[in-house]
Amino acid sequence: MRKFSRAAHTVRRPSESLDPETPHRRESAGIKLFAYDESSLDERDLARVEEGFEAVDRGLTSWINVDGLHDRATIDSLGDHFSLHPLLLEDVVHAAQRCKVEQYGGNTYIVIRMLEFDRLSKEINSVQISIVLAGNTLITFQEHDRDVFDGVRERIRAGRPRMRTSGTAYLAYALLDAVVDHYFVLLEEVGEHIESIEDALFRRPDRETLTDIHTLKRELIYLRKSVWPLRETINSMLRDEDLPFHDKLHVYLRDLYDHTVQVIETTESYRDLNAGMLETYLSMVSNRMNEVMKTLTIIATLFIPLTFVVGVYGMNFDHMPELHLRWGYPALWGFMVLVSIAMFRYFKRKRWL
Amino acid sequence: MRKFSRAAHTVRRPSESLDPETPHRRESAGIKLFAYDESSLDERDLARVEEGFEAVDRGLTSWINVDGLHDRATIDSLGDHFSLHPLLLEDVVHAAQRCKVEQYGGNTYIVIRMLEFDRLSKEINSVQISIVLAGNTLITFQEHDRDVFDGVRERIRAGRPRMRTSGTAYLAYALLDAVVDHYFVLLEEVGEHIESIEDALFRRPDRETLTDIHTLKRELIYLRKSVWPLRETINSMLRDEDLPFHDKLHVYLRDLYDHTVQVIETTESYRDLNAGMLETYLSMVSNRMNEVMKTLTIIATLFIPLTFVVGVYGMNFDHMPELHLRWGYPALWGFMVLVSIAMFRYFKRKRWL
Amino acid sequence: MRKFSRAAHTVRRPSESLDPETPHRRESAGIKLFAYDESSLDERDLARVEEGFEAVDRGLTSWINVDGLHDRATIDSLGDHFSLHPLLLEDVVHAAQRCKVEQYGGNTYIVIRMLEFDRLSKEINSVQISIVLAGNTLITFQEHDRDVFDGVRERIRAGRPRMRTSGTAYLAYALLDAVVDHYFVLLEEVGEHIESIEDALFRRPDRETLTDIHTLKRELIYLRKSVWPLRETINSMLRDEDLPFHDKLHVYLRDLYDHTVQVIETTESYRDLNAGMLETYLSMVSNRMNEVMKTLTIIATLFIPLTFVVGVYGMNFDHMPELHLRWGYPALWGFMVLVSIAMFRYFKRKRWL
Amino acid sequence: MRKFSRAAHTVRRPSESLDPETPHRRESAGIKLFAYDESSLDERDLARVEEGFEAVDRGLTSWINVDGLHDRATIDSLGDHFSLHPLLLEDVVHAAQRCKVEQYGGNTYIVIRMLEFDRLSKEINSVQISIVLAGNTLITFQEHDRDVFDGVRERIRAGRPRMRTSGTAYLAYALLDAVVDHYFVLLEEVGEHIESIEDALFRRPDRETLTDIHTLKRELIYLRKSVWPLRETINSMLRDEDLPFHDKLHVYLRDLYDHTVQVIETTESYRDLNAGMLETYLSMVSNRMNEVMKTLTIIATLFIPLTFVVGVYGMNFDHMPELHLRWGYPALWGFMVLVSIAMFRYFKRKRWL
Amino acid sequence: MRKFSRAAHTVRRPSESLDPETPHRRESAGIKLFAYDESSLDERDLARVEEGFEAVDRGLTSWINVDGLHDRATIDSLGDHFSLHPLLLEDVVHAAQRCKVEQYGGNTYIVIRMLEFDRLSKEINSVQISIVLAGNTLITFQEHDRDVFDGVRERIRAGRPRMRTSGTAYLAYALLDAVVDHYFVLLEEVGEHIESIEDALFRRPDRETLTDIHTLKRELIYLRKSVWPLRETINSMLRDEDLPFHDKLHVYLRDLYDHTVQVIETTESYRDLNAGMLETYLSMVSNRMNEVMKTLTIIATLFIPLTFVVGVYGMNFDHMPELHLRWGYPALWGFMVLVSIAMFRYFKRKRWL
Repeated sequence: MRKFSRAAHTVRRPSESLDPETPHRRESAGIKLFAYDESSLDERDLARVEEGFEAVDRGLTSWINVDGLHDRATIDSLGDHFSLHPLLLEDVVHAAQRCKVEQYGGNTYIVIRMLEFDRLSKEINSVQISIVLAGNTLITFQEHDRDVFDGVRERIRAGRPRMRTSGTAYLAYALLDAVVDHYFVLLEEVGEHIESIEDALFRRPDRETLTDIHTLKRELIYLRKSVWPLRETINSMLRDEDLPFHDKLHVYLRDLYDHTVQVIETTESYRDLNAGMLETYLSMVSNRMNEVMKTLTIIATLFIPLTFVVGVYGMNFDHMPELHLRWGYPALWGFMVLVSIAMFRYFKRKRWL
Repeated sequence: MRKFSRAAHTVRRPSESLDPETPHRRESAGIKLFAYDESSLDERDLARVEEGFEAVDRGLTSWINVDGLHDRATIDSLGDHFSLHPLLLEDVVHAAQRCKVEQYGGNTYIVIRMLEFDRLSKEINSVQISIVLAGNTLITFQEHDRDVFDGVRERIRAGRPRMRTSGTAYLAYALLDAVVDHYFVLLEEVGEHIESIEDALFRRPDRETLTDIHTLKRELIYLRKSVWPLRETINSMLRDEDLPFHDKLHVYLRDLYDHTVQVIETTESYRDLNAGMLETYLSMVSNRMNEVMKTLTIIATLFIPLTFVVGVYGMNFDHMPELHLRWGYPALWGFMVLVSIAMFRYFKRKRWL
Repeated sequence: MRKFSRAAHTVRRPSESLDPETPHRRESAGIKLFAYDESSLDERDLARVEEGFEAVDRGLTSWINVDGLHDRATIDSLGDHFSLHPLLLEDVVHAAQRCKVEQYGGNTYIVIRMLEFDRLSKEINSVQISIVLAGNTLITFQEHDRDVFDGVRERIRAGRPRMRTSGTAYLAYALLDAVVDHYFVLLEEVGEHIESIEDALFRRPDRETLTDIHTLKRELIYLRKSVWPLRETINSMLRDEDLPFHDKLHVYLRDLYDHTVQVIETTESYRDLNAGMLETYLSMVSNRMNEVMKTLTIIATLFIPLTFVVGVYGMNFDHMPELHLRWGYPALWGFMVLVSIAMFRYFKRKRWL
Repeated sequence: MRKFSRAAHTVRRPSESLDPETPHRRESAGIKLFAYDESSLDERDLARVEEGFEAVDRGLTSWINVDGLHDRATIDSLGDHFSLHPLLLEDVVHAAQRCKVEQYGGNTYIVIRMLEFDRLSKEINSVQISIVLAGNTLITFQEHDRDVFDGVRERIRAGRPRMRTSGTAYLAYALLDAVVDHYFVLLEEVGEHIESIEDALFRRPDRETLTDIHTLKRELIYLRKSVWPLRETINSMLRDEDLPFHDKLHVYLRDLYDHTVQVIETTESYRDLNAGMLETYLSMVSNRMNEVMKTLTIIATLFIPLTFVVGVYGMNFDHMPELHLRWGYPALWGFMVLVSIAMFRYFKRKRWL
Repeated sequence: MRKFSRAAHTVRRPSESLDPETPHRRESAGIKLFAYDESSLDERDLARVEEGFEAVDRGLTSWINVDGLHDRATIDSLGDHFSLHPLLLEDVVHAAQRCKVEQYGGNTYIVIRMLEFDRLSKEINSVQISIVLAGNTLITFQEHDRDVFDGVRERIRAGRPRMRTSGTAYLAYALLDAVVDHYFVLLEEVGEHIESIEDALFRRPDRETLTDIHTLKRELIYLRKSVWPLRETINSMLRDEDLPFHDKLHVYLRDLYDHTVQVIETTESYRDLNAGMLETYLSMVSNRMNEVMKTLTIIATLFIPLTFVVGVYGMNFDHMPELHLRWGYPALWGFMVLVSIAMFRYFKRKRWL
């Protein structure tokens, strides 16, 4: 429930709920360096980020991945070495940026959100990933590593020529592609959740179903808010001539753009489906109340008149001739049976039975 | 119900439900070749796709149709011979592409979805059709043949001059036209289904009606998602000067565009109609509950006071003078009849009867 | 109810319901020729369309009106004589075109729908009118004559100079204007129907009101679908330099455009009003059920406790001292009257009375 | 309720309801002339409009205001003298034009609607005002004078330099400004009406509240329809170089444009508020019915079982040992009190009390 | 509730409700002057605004902040000294302007709204802030000081080089940035309020919850209306070459623009969430009524038939053989227990228990 009250950009740290048992404020961030060219690969875990600068300066294509945003020293050191703009560094640290691509001085800055569906809480969690292109070096900042880049790492290690020789712009594309591919996993999980709600809805809707529908609505609003700006971002990468992606990666970015549009359209479809669910829920509840009411009405309509009749002959008037008739009692039973049959017929005609 | 959880692009294989009795994973795909010019026609079923390459290389207009996407060898062989871009081949195999037209290197790639309404499950099924233009050759890839292209085949066989002499761009148009024409059949079937729901809605709405309305909603969301991108696609074919359709086929594509707009508008009309149905359903249920309530209220309001009255004279007080009056019992009946008449008048005035 | 299931373009023949007693499939279409210049007028009914070609070839401004689309010979003969494009002829015959203006070769083709409100079935019927401009000749095709062009005919006969000397483009404008003017009649009729529903809604909503609201919704969806493309069409006539209307008729077309926008806006207003009606209906039903429930509750709450009390003194215990008190019976009446008064006060306070 | 059925442009005369006691079809229209330059002012009521033509021809800036549109002679005479286009004169007379600005020959024609909120009928009434710019002369046509221009008249009389020397384009601006300023008065009145409905909604919603909400909805639809085109109109005045307003009055028209946008946005806000009202109404009714139901249920659930119990001991079986127990009667009372207490606890736990 | 009825631009003074105990119509406004260059700072409270003109004329960058809009003399004096356009001064005084940036003569005028969430009344209050750029001088007008600019003041005092040397355009940016930053505080507060409503909604929805939802809806409509124009405003500052912000402040304004978009998107998300709340409320009420109805029905269905049965044996017929059976009474009890068990089973099967 905390999602929206923390929307203010200096406050939101949604990733904190991702991995509650890990202590976040570690002494130093985990730093990983990949420095490679066509033939060589230098992969290292760095204790201090400065250890990697020498590799960077040798002219290799370098990828520095920083896990954790609390190690201010590392971030400042990177800022100094690559002369990153102060507004850029501020955006990296504030973990509630809108997805975007921007040129700060000579560096390109991309923000994207990693999204995950938590099956237990039925909520979508998100982590912000910042990608900075500074010449031959690409720097990624994440709260903590979500393994989503492992595929890219494998391809670097495997020495795929395109990966090894296409520089940081292609590497940035590969990372974005990995994130967007992961969105499809999320969408499938959400889709399964939608189906399970629909099943419950038509089999046995209860209060929990209602809570699920509402939570889903909130999560889809959040998903939409996270995914929409991505289209615009990738479009800028395609069109903006100031950015280093134009032309060179055109065919790849167009593919990425198509995938993003597909993600957005599926999200919108989910929202449409969700909108129908609450209406259906209300209809099901109405239906059931109707059924309950009919049962009550049948019972009451049948027995209330009969109870009146037997009440009549329970009266203590001195002069009630029927009471003294020999066949009074069985005759009354006969009358009551006839009334009941007539009632049944009436209910049948009204289709209440 | 599986439709949306399989939306992820590497997962969805919606066509599997189209033809359950056919075994899909055949050893090899069914391959059909049409190679023709103004005067000659060479129509053949190929065991291996390579058998057709000689005809292609003779400079005839060729159409290779591949049924089934599991025969990787055939696809790779085509990719090699026509130097198709790897991303293009990937799109062919992943059966959940968004409808689009794109230029990959010198080849044009079109994706379109064939849609069918399954009257039993009341769901819309879809198959992806890929069309590749590579010089004089047009290649189509489908999961398995849906007969929708038979009309085009007939026109080639019949030797219609426009068909025979206008090359692959016109052939691509003819295939798209066949698919869009088939959409109108789908729309008519869905329209009949809508009418049958509306009939049920106003005659005797029940739980099944509700399920139908909901299913229809989901299917219309899916239909819309499939059909919308088509407009954009055909518009690109009309406007984009890099594609081979510009100018030459202008009047035909404009016609196709008009039809697509008509399909989209009808889809939107259906969605509007569907949106009203659930409201109507709720109103009908409300109406009926109102009627039930009124019956209950009339019975209860009539008999509960009378039951009280007869209860009074069933009491065993020693001193109840009314009980000993000669006309007490008939007088009470008179009183109760009067009360009933008054009640009836009241109900009439309230328009409950 | 057939409206939407017949939306497919090869199927829909909505005009069949317009005039059920007229046999449609007449042997030949009714053909009317007006050929005129500033000073002369030649008005004739033609048995065969070829009889009119000589007048056309003399260079007069000619208007050939063809009623009925089943006389294929006439249509083909016109197609031959004026070399009309095959796609154009196909559009003329398929009576479910979207409203549009298009240039086919040297000829201009306009499709527009005539709309009529059927007060009995409360449905909107439509007929397609095709207008073809071929040099000095204007050809109109209709299912059968709806009299809407009589005003234009009168103005030709009356020899109005503008009518007589402005050629076929102005004649086309005059015909479109006549159709759009007729839309206002339709809108007024629909508006009156809306008012009558609103009256029923606030006076005495019943099941028929609900059916009316739903039918109105469907008809407004259909009206909107018919009218929206008209704006675009007239806009093309204003802007497209390839069409023969540009410049010459600017001030008239702008006027027509204004009227079309007014038609569209009124349609949208009607849709807004209609959307509110169902909500109001539900509110009225809720209101009434509330009222019914309150009556039931008042009666039950008043008498059920009293019935319990009299039940108590109807028990047959040997030792019930109250029964033997001299004032027991009147005291109980007093008690029950007091309870009733207290109940009434409570209901008053709760504002149920 | 007549508003929408009279929407057809030749029919609607909404102003007739504004001032029912004034006879509309006067013999001649009231005509007022202001002819002025920097130093002189000639203000006159004219019996016949021709009396003013001499002043106009002297080259003064002239404003002729015509009240009432039924005096065809006056309108024709003005049409002749200023050579106004026939379509323009037609638009003046047909009192249901959409707000617009148009150039007819050398003259500029502006239509705008004066709106007033009638507190009694809770409806918005409207009068059409036509403004014609013909060289040095500005002519206004109204159904009858609504005093809204009195402020402008005062400023002319007071001899304000800007007013006196800026010609008819500025005068036209001043008149439009007066009308738009009057919209804010209308909006405030409608806003107060909305508040009074909201108050009723949360205090004591009844059937009248529902009618008010529905009427408000209809009036807001009408308001929106009247106000939206104004933005477009003023935008044309700002941008269209053919109109005499461009450049000269830029800063003033921009100001007017801002006000118009503010009017539109407030109207949209009102519509949003109104949309929520009906939902709230339904919720309030549901709430109340819930409360009623709970009362009924508590009473019934409490007394129905007890009534059963006392019924048991009212039976006349020969062998009912309890009846003969010494403490049977008080013991039964004790039992019934215990049951009641248990019931109360249950209701408390369910939070029904 | 007064918010919307006061929307008319000459009437609304929303800030009056912000600080009710402060008397607004003070004799003179509070005026604060900052005049600075890179090395010097002259900060003063002015009794009369004219005291500051000398500093302004010395060529320092000056910021004059005027609190309170009722001191007409001060405003006129500023108007004279900086030759501000009369329309600009009018806009400053009328406290219900739409957010905008405009060029009046050589001066730039910005209007923006400060927004605050009042936790008690759960309403959003707003104050209009006017910013005028006149050469080296920037003038701000506020109803009364809301402390939001204190951060900017601190940075001037601290002698930050960018602040001190970048002139009034940068100062204007800094002030806007302070206001937009404050929006995030507002959004967080509103977000917390939304969560508290959601909590109440799922735990224990009552009438107050409903009022809260409705109030929130109104406030979000108001928030949206206040925030939307800001995007357009900042976009103008970025794009319009006539304004003094273009180019120089590009990177900063883009950052501000991003924040504004984020504010708007969060507002829209809140509106979506709010829209779902009322539906959820209705569902919860329906749910509960369903539960109440079921309890009533179970009790009534169980006891009404039994009450009928005991009524039968309370009748006083002379000949009722059952009454005289030895085991009649216990047998009846047995029968009634069996009926009850059967009923329970039925309820279980229907899942009402």
